[in-house]
Amino acid sequence: MTILAARRQNTVIGDTIARVLSRVNAITQGGPGHTRPSYSDEESAAHAVVEDEARALGLEVRRDPAGNLFARLRGGDPVAVPLYVGSHLDTVSQGGAYDGQAGVAGGLALIAALRAHGATPAMDIVLTVTRAEESVWFPVSYIGSRAALARLSPEDLQARRVDTGRSLADHMRDQGFDADAVLAHEPPAPARFLEFHIEQGPVLDAAAEPYGIVTAIRGGLRYRAARVHGAWAHSGGAPRHGRADAVAAFAELVVAMQRVWDELLAQGRDLTVTFGRVDAATPAHAMAKVAGELEFCLDMRSEDVAALDLADRLLRAEIARIEAAQPGIRFELGRQSRSQPAALSQAMADLVARGAERLGDRPRRMLSGGGHDAAAFAAAGWDSVMVFIRNWNGSHCPEEAMDEADLARAVEAVFLALAEDRT
Amino acid sequence: MTILAARRQNTVIGDTIARVLSRVNAITQGGPGHTRPSYSDEESAAHAVVEDEARALGLEVRRDPAGNLFARLRGGDPVAVPLYVGSHLDTVSQGGAYDGQAGVAGGLALIAALRAHGATPAMDIVLTVTRAEESVWFPVSYIGSRAALARLSPEDLQARRVDTGRSLADHMRDQGFDADAVLAHEPPAPARFLEFHIEQGPVLDAAAEPYGIVTAIRGGLRYRAARVHGAWAHSGGAPRHGRADAVAAFAELVVAMQRVWDELLAQGRDLTVTFGRVDAATPAHAMAKVAGELEFCLDMRSEDVAALDLADRLLRAEIARIEAAQPGIRFELGRQSRSQPAALSQAMADLVARGAERLGDRPRRMLSGGGHDAAAFAAAGWDSVMVFIRNWNGSHCPEEAMDEADLARAVEAVFLALAEDRT
Repeated sequence: MTILAARRQNTVIGDTIARVLSRVNAITQGGPGHTRPSYSDEESAAHAVVEDEARALGLEVRRDPAGNLFARLRGGDPVAVPLYVGSHLDTVSQGGAYDGQAGVAGGLALIAALRAHGATPAMDIVLTVTRAEESVWFPVSYIGSRAALARLSPEDLQARRVDTGRSLADHMRDQGFDADAVLAHEPPAPARFLEFHIEQGPVLDAAAEPYGIVTAIRGGLRYRAARVHGAWAHSGGAPRHGRADAVAAFAELVVAMQRVWDELLAQGRDLTVTFGRVDAATPAHAMAKVAGELEFCLDMRSEDVAALDLADRLLRAEIARIEAAQPGIRFELGRQSRSQPAALSQAMADLVARGAERLGDRPRRMLSGGGHDAAAFAAAGWDSVMVFIRNWNGSHCPEEAMDEADLARAVEAVFLALAEDRT
Repeated sequence: MTILAARRQNTVIGDTIARVLSRVNAITQGGPGHTRPSYSDEESAAHAVVEDEARALGLEVRRDPAGNLFARLRGGDPVAVPLYVGSHLDTVSQGGAYDGQAGVAGGLALIAALRAHGATPAMDIVLTVTRAEESVWFPVSYIGSRAALARLSPEDLQARRVDTGRSLADHMRDQGFDADAVLAHEPPAPARFLEFHIEQGPVLDAAAEPYGIVTAIRGGLRYRAARVHGAWAHSGGAPRHGRADAVAAFAELVVAMQRVWDELLAQGRDLTVTFGRVDAATPAHAMAKVAGELEFCLDMRSEDVAALDLADRLLRAEIARIEAAQPGIRFELGRQSRSQPAALSQAMADLVARGAERLGDRPRRMLSGGGHDAAAFAAAGWDSVMVFIRNWNGSHCPEEAMDEADLARAVEAVFLALAEDRT
């Protein structure tokens, strides 16, 4: 490739990323952060922007019954296994400017660069924009990608969105899609899937590395609506012993699970433990009352199902210990939901690494703590890989930050891998 | 006293208690529980019921500028120090059938029995029905009794009711009272004050004792709007070390303060420690996010100011320890508010005990954990005492329970003390 060609491709990648991020984020610019719920008007508006971009590139656009967008650049060899590249456009409540949309922008930039450079690869490249990846809205993982892969169940379609209380099927219909057809449709033949995504953790930023290659995605074990039942009492009238204080019992559990976490890490096990939402602030709660109720979420993740099972057993043991020590306290974990850990493709990781090498980069191989659509594709037997982009200021928050140049460099690495791979 | 006389007095006490409680609670019978906000139409309607009862007994009725009701039974000796007996009629939101109104019913029953028995004591007996005792409505303690005692400030009168956002002065005017006159009026000369009230704690019920004599009212040290600041992060992406998890830091503080509480109790100090309200359930909080913020209330109470000061120093030491161990975590306690402990009158306690002895009772001497109008009278130099009635099912809640016979027995003890004391 000439220096001039490299510059042009670089400009196309950078411009596409900047334009797509800017257009998508403009939809929800009121702030704080960006809020595009799963199967909301805001998510549909973001999809329309990307569809418009894909049509402008001359791609073959289609949607499946769940509203996932596929925009195809035909390759040189019709029997080569296609490469699907993309991510999602929904966000958590008050999310950031990169989680999801950076991967969509990166996928489109990759195809734009291949187009601009005339570097048609052997296989079809299919920009893949899923729906409803963020599981904060419905208690179901990877809704869009699993719908695409014909892996949603009728029960999943009846799950209620936490803010509206209405079903997934209803919200799909609201956005013009067909919940019944989702269950019936024929999924694409297993192929290859690549997802650019911000890391959502501090590893790359701390190491001053612009991007990394993900080899596995942690699975999760979650209690979304756990409760502590105690006894309401007067803060000044109820003595130390005899109280059944839901806040004190919850605090003991949190501290105990931090210790469990340390112990499992010391054993060399992979684990995260997060109590992300705690509600003892209902109209019944007051400064002058011992809390008789508390609601909380618990999210544990690991690349290793056995570590999750062990952490869950230790959780139950700690609860039993606290209940025995504090009569009147009863924990109710509620329904458990799980997502399975996913091993990604060694061959796909090597492909990305070859492109990176041509840029002089040696991206690290790393774990993903967050769940991603790539996990759903991997679970369905696709050769999948993710490329993580360093980010900072946290994630799932308005402050979420990323340097577009880091994403452009990662896209360029994949471009070079595919350009080398072309017919 | 003959057996017949004792039976008659008993019947009068029991009937009066039953009738007053029934009439007052009928005003707010829609449920759940009883809600008579401070300076509301409901509180005024309850006052009207009691005024009607007092007039039926032929008492001399007057109201002060704040709407407190005084209904006087003339004693035998015009220079004897009067005994004021009563409580309040407002409730918390969704409160119970006894907190406040039981003490008003008890006071009226005492006077009715003295009347019925012709047992005129030396001193005047003044049924005292205060306004606005429950500090959940306005952030001011003992509004009615402090108004009666000319201890409210102009700033207090500008405090806003939490539900309406309107000032105390405005709410007084709505109910026909005069906020300006409250600041100017001449309080009654310091005298004696007796308040019947449910215990709002488990001590008497656990000991199977119908009533007890309160020797002191705990003071409070409160942080109504404390916060933990941490860093938002992805639950699966943020490793154990480097997290600044507001929920985990808060849990450590709660557990540490339970330990501090145990240590102070072991030293023989009086203390309660309650984290009654915890909010990590805003739109920014989610299952899949490490919490970057958490808001909480802390309420500590003791009969001993030095114990509160010590607990506050230990609180700050624990916070410093947690902040040092968890970089990125910062506690912000916010404004501290205090109420002073009140020592009640030994002589008044002995008076009640003498009456009890005539019934064959030996009521325990105990602390009050909750604040009460008696604390305001004690702070103004009145010889004050409280008689606690056992209760169960908690307090400040619809389930609040009490046996009217227990209250009747306590009233009878005071009746006998006064009958003995008469001229």
